[in-house]
Amino acid sequence: MGKNNHAGNEYLLLDNINCPADLRKLSVNQLPQLCDEIRKFLIETCSVNPGHFASSMGAVEMTVALHYVFDTPYDRLVWDVGHQAYGHKLLTGRRDKFFTNRKLGGISGFPNPEESEYDTFTAGHASNSISAALGMAVAARLNKEKRNVVAIIGDASVSGGLAFEGINNAANTPNNLLIVLNDNDMSIDRNVGSLNSYLAHLTTSPGYNKFRYGLYRMLRKARLVNERGKGAILRFNNSLKSLLVHQQNIFEGLNIRYFGPFDGHDVVKIVQVLTDIRDMEGPRLLHLRTIKGKGYAPAEAEPWKWHAPGKFEPETGVRACDKTTNDNSPVKYQEVFGHTLLELAEKDKRIVGITAAMSSGTSMEIMQAKLPARVFDVGISEGHAVTFAGGLAKDGMRPFVAIYSSFLQRAYDHIIHDVAIQKLPVTLCIDRAGIVGEDGVTHHGALDLAYLRSIPNLIVAAPADESTLRNLMFTAANNDLGPFAIRYPRGNGNSARWRTPMHSIEVGRGVKVTDGQDVAVISIGTLRDSVKDAVEMAHKEGVNAAHYDMIFLKPLDEDILKEVAEKSCPIITVEDGTVNGGLGGAVAEWMTSHGYNQKIIRLGIPDSFITHGSPAELKTMCGFDTNSIYEAILRVANRH
Amino acid sequence: MGKNNHAGNEYLLLDNINCPADLRKLSVNQLPQLCDEIRKFLIETCSVNPGHFASSMGAVEMTVALHYVFDTPYDRLVWDVGHQAYGHKLLTGRRDKFFTNRKLGGISGFPNPEESEYDTFTAGHASNSISAALGMAVAARLNKEKRNVVAIIGDASVSGGLAFEGINNAANTPNNLLIVLNDNDMSIDRNVGSLNSYLAHLTTSPGYNKFRYGLYRMLRKARLVNERGKGAILRFNNSLKSLLVHQQNIFEGLNIRYFGPFDGHDVVKIVQVLTDIRDMEGPRLLHLRTIKGKGYAPAEAEPWKWHAPGKFEPETGVRACDKTTNDNSPVKYQEVFGHTLLELAEKDKRIVGITAAMSSGTSMEIMQAKLPARVFDVGISEGHAVTFAGGLAKDGMRPFVAIYSSFLQRAYDHIIHDVAIQKLPVTLCIDRAGIVGEDGVTHHGALDLAYLRSIPNLIVAAPADESTLRNLMFTAANNDLGPFAIRYPRGNGNSARWRTPMHSIEVGRGVKVTDGQDVAVISIGTLRDSVKDAVEMAHKEGVNAAHYDMIFLKPLDEDILKEVAEKSCPIITVEDGTVNGGLGGAVAEWMTSHGYNQKIIRLGIPDSFITHGSPAELKTMCGFDTNSIYEAILRVANRH
Repeated sequence: MGKNNHAGNEYLLLDNINCPADLRKLSVNQLPQLCDEIRKFLIETCSVNPGHFASSMGAVEMTVALHYVFDTPYDRLVWDVGHQAYGHKLLTGRRDKFFTNRKLGGISGFPNPEESEYDTFTAGHASNSISAALGMAVAARLNKEKRNVVAIIGDASVSGGLAFEGINNAANTPNNLLIVLNDNDMSIDRNVGSLNSYLAHLTTSPGYNKFRYGLYRMLRKARLVNERGKGAILRFNNSLKSLLVHQQNIFEGLNIRYFGPFDGHDVVKIVQVLTDIRDMEGPRLLHLRTIKGKGYAPAEAEPWKWHAPGKFEPETGVRACDKTTNDNSPVKYQEVFGHTLLELAEKDKRIVGITAAMSSGTSMEIMQAKLPARVFDVGISEGHAVTFAGGLAKDGMRPFVAIYSSFLQRAYDHIIHDVAIQKLPVTLCIDRAGIVGEDGVTHHGALDLAYLRSIPNLIVAAPADESTLRNLMFTAANNDLGPFAIRYPRGNGNSARWRTPMHSIEVGRGVKVTDGQDVAVISIGTLRDSVKDAVEMAHKEGVNAAHYDMIFLKPLDEDILKEVAEKSCPIITVEDGTVNGGLGGAVAEWMTSHGYNQKIIRLGIPDSFITHGSPAELKTMCGFDTNSIYEAILRVANRH
Repeated sequence: MGKNNHAGNEYLLLDNINCPADLRKLSVNQLPQLCDEIRKFLIETCSVNPGHFASSMGAVEMTVALHYVFDTPYDRLVWDVGHQAYGHKLLTGRRDKFFTNRKLGGISGFPNPEESEYDTFTAGHASNSISAALGMAVAARLNKEKRNVVAIIGDASVSGGLAFEGINNAANTPNNLLIVLNDNDMSIDRNVGSLNSYLAHLTTSPGYNKFRYGLYRMLRKARLVNERGKGAILRFNNSLKSLLVHQQNIFEGLNIRYFGPFDGHDVVKIVQVLTDIRDMEGPRLLHLRTIKGKGYAPAEAEPWKWHAPGKFEPETGVRACDKTTNDNSPVKYQEVFGHTLLELAEKDKRIVGITAAMSSGTSMEIMQAKLPARVFDVGISEGHAVTFAGGLAKDGMRPFVAIYSSFLQRAYDHIIHDVAIQKLPVTLCIDRAGIVGEDGVTHHGALDLAYLRSIPNLIVAAPADESTLRNLMFTAANNDLGPFAIRYPRGNGNSARWRTPMHSIEVGRGVKVTDGQDVAVISIGTLRDSVKDAVEMAHKEGVNAAHYDMIFLKPLDEDILKEVAEKSCPIITVEDGTVNGGLGGAVAEWMTSHGYNQKIIRLGIPDSFITHGSPAELKTMCGFDTNSIYEAILRVANRH
């Protein structure tokens, strides 16, 4: 998708921008055309190479204006969640590589400091930009650098507790941080917090803020306001406050100067405003109103569908996933979860559903559609989601909390302090556990088995298939054993006939899949089927491997472990999670403490951060695809 | 400290209150006297049996009024951090047990649902009350219970991100939650967030809010406002908003009805206000101004000293810790950290200090006093503290972040996402690691070794003594290896001569303490000295135990492990942390994956939540005091 692919002058301006310095050679009047070209480029490339589409479409003008006004990379742009940053990638030397977006060995779908000096900070989990940018702004101040630092945060991310902590602290620490609020009234799913209603209200009553901004420009012209010079007669902030004490907004209440709202698609205006406020001192917030999916009609109409649309036909707006699918094909684990939760909730009034801005991603929306009063999408606030569930459980409810594995890291203390200590019957449905693929390093659910295993009172399980997922959910809903964690991967299961009758299963009881005596393979989760295949392959080579599906990481099935121990053969553990402290660690601890002495090979995600690529590629890279498991079996059986 | 100890009518009212129902038999006019009695009781008991004194002194009137107006335990009081809840304990049937406060087998220093039905939720980590109470309020609504739910939160806790997430969500979820803001302008250390300045501002301009409240009472009298009845002519909230649009506050901006500020020590007034707003619908916030330490002059004058003062003389206000201490006695690890950080910072301008409302607790105040511009107390916001440190490190600084182990659980994702992925040189100084003693279940730092070990790129160390702590800090300050975690316990070291010259030590290199061949003991952290004693005791019984101090959990010293493996003797691992996934797990994983086959006994904190008591008592209970280690050595050597 490099220059060569473009007919003549399709990308007249964009083709000549290899870094932001090139951009700054344009006149302001050329910027709208550049924005059009970027949009065209995004539609063209994202339609064939799927990614996060709609957010980046909405951020085009903002992105162009920021690189135009600020001296990047010396000035720092800190993007909050990389969804919005595709335009930024195009302007910072990665246009020719953009066709490799999210592919193994290609560029990352999120800002990535290892990839470019323009990507200043990791940006996969929401709400971190203000804190990180504040750190950079304070570093600049301590080092006497005249650097500008800008955090660019969406309205959904700003409702996260971390963003609030950042704002609260920014306002009381000497710094010149600029926060740009990209307000598209939307997160991954529609936003529900009161801060978002508040932002909407600001937008509908802009008169006061327009007046303030106009007054500021007038005073500055008259040299009554002088931000940097020592001879300033009066400072903008205080003067306006004393003139206009009778209205304030939340940000001003927190001592952050507020500008806005402005039209986030008027690139000329944004350049003007940014130029005006660039050199002001102290923390400031610029509120831009944008439209998610802007410039592509189907995405503007249904932005939530176009967050990450997959492949699509640019002309018609038909997404590949919209086409009729075969009713006999397997469904996603997410859908199994969603339908099963609804089934359970229809029979048990105690069951409520909670998610944190992942209603469609987790399929919580299935229950939400039928039982809206019993589903709570709390917005981007994983910690609150879990503590809120604790409160519900304390007073008799049975909350099911669906959160992606890597985002649940934000709620680690809340699981311990607000759920596990009190043994509250909260069920954690941990979605996108293990390797997730193209979203890459920040999104792999690599650590959950390890970080959950050390929490007392917690049951930790991972189903090998759809019916076990259903049975685990059924068991969790009907147990009085306390908190129950169930982790499952992103993507399809194996069977179209997943809607099996549910029954309770014994907690801490695994399954023997195959008997054997040369090697014992112990797996957990959906890797069972890879192990099955590997065991069969090994059998053909004359190696008889036993295979056990533990289902439960905690409590461990000690009968299985004893059976394995008594075989005195080498052990292989297989898990879609870190090899440090997960299933492999649990088995090693049990075996050594009981005086058994087999060699144990732990297959799983190695002790390093894993890049992006297809799940199959990454599993091979990590060494737990079918073939790697097969080879490990032969190796420990000394057949290699 | 029961009734019998009190002369005659010293506690005339208090002695007859065995539950809140007894309290409600009093007339409002008797409440001030009751408050006096509670204060007297707190001074009397806390002076001989140390606890969190000043916060509870400030919350006396509020506590009495809440139990007087609300129908506890049917109505729910959810305390945020138990510091303020001693009065609550006295009024809810635990007066006679109060002398056992924080002692092994006695009552907990924090609200504890296992202890009393009046303690509705775990309350050891700040900022969780609003989320938990919202869960209860929503449960009540779903179950059609006419229950009132009240969250009582301090001004320091309300600045935590979790509290904001709770408020943000409370405002958009149908509920009747009442939030009582106990604003004493103070957290453990003095508060620094902008929200706190904002609250102070509200207090100094109460005219408007007084007017609003007065108007509300007038309208209600005139039956123009009727909260529950269907015939309400106009609803309070909307009516006032339309009357008085020209001022709003942050909470109102977030759609939470705001009342206040009121004098939090006028119990009669608080009863009146609570009665007025008790039956209102929708989320509400009542802002009470209190004085930390109220009613005890020395505590009012220096509240931070009296947060947890230890024993003191009630008449003079002299604390046991104020008395001249022997200059030759060992100092706390906290002080070693604090002085060492200052030493390092004086020589290296890149070093900055960060803490989250634990400036005195961690001794960050030592650097703060000398280099205030380079120390950042970010308030209760552990997540922000770590991400902020990431931003500082990204632009060339060397941040040292000092946070208590159990509170660092709040920053788990931030360590991973905002520090470790980018290999940023942030040093985490993890205070109060391991068993902390009297603060109990929510405060033990039991999990850090386990939860940090699975994070890639992270160095994890635990010094056995003061000079190793200094050397680790020196090494971290001068390394380019990325993030570095150093954990150390609460309390004194062993030597008065701790200020040893610093030098860099090799990362991943442990120390052989004693050679031996019958048993190999591998320890990490300050338990080294217990192990040393146990090894000596065993030697006298003819068992020659080797002893290694690993210093580093990650990377592991494989030379030591190989040396141990080749001895082919049983192994004992000893750590002041969970036995699931920590040092013992790491050793078991290494041994089994390398084909060694010794039995491994893992001593440490068992897989359960540990109660309160003295550290010595709890270590014995957990089985890793000197004698337990000694017995384990003899047992694995088959001498028992």
